[in-house]
Amino acid sequence: MALAGLAGISKQSAAGEVKLKGALVHHVFFWLKEPENSKHLQQLLAALNELLKVETIKMSHIGVPASTEERDVVDHSYSVSYLAFFDSKKDQDSYQVHPIHLKFVEENAHLWNKVVVYDSVDV
Amino acid sequence: MALAGLAGISKQSAAGEVKLKGALVHHVFFWLKEPENSKHLQQLLAALNELLKVETIKMSHIGVPASTEERDVVDHSYSVSYLAFFDSKKDQDSYQVHPIHLKFVEENAHLWNKVVVYDSVDV
Repeated sequence: MALAGLAGISKQSAAGEVKLKGALVHHVFFWLKEPENSKHLQQLLAALNELLKVETIKMSHIGVPASTEERDVVDHSYSVSYLAFFDSKKDQDSYQVHPIHLKFVEENAHLWNKVVVYDSVDV
Repeated sequence: MALAGLAGISKQSAAGEVKLKGALVHHVFFWLKEPENSKHLQQLLAALNELLKVETIKMSHIGVPASTEERDVVDHSYSVSYLAFFDSKKDQDSYQVHPIHLKFVEENAHLWNKVVVYDSVDV
């Protein structure tokens, strides 16, 4: 069952689009202290991939700024985007104090000088 | 095929988590001019749901701030989170000038005083 993890949190519209429901969407943006330092970038990306081992993360995407149009409203200034879907606020709360997450922060927090987190739930 | 739209952009790890690959992640945060005005909120939410009719959107989530812990790095100040996954930058570019998107902006831009957009792609 390739996508079993999604089955409980999604439904499909007539148009073929998947509208995620029942998820807590946790999106973190990191600004590296040395954005041109590729070793720092690689360390952070590797560490985020390790972080995905936390079992309450049901779906994820790790990325960097896209080369979309430069518009006033589009922020391309961050270094790394880390998007994780949880089933509930409870799961996200437990993730915050999970040993893997605490280790991630301890070992990597020196790399960044700014973090912005957005947590969203269904309306 | 309930989740056919995802099949091309995802794979599953041993742990059961879905790591999205090949996606352009477009995340928009809206700050309403009148955040306590429930009619404005409902109008924006309804308009965003209409916006999902754009065919290049493969997956989406519409939300409001979660009641996660108040931490300095967590921004709970926005009114609405609108997350859309495209297959490519090209699809996101065409979405920007799609008639449904232009209509959305024209009819609703008066509701907000701040928008922040983050576009991310796989590393």
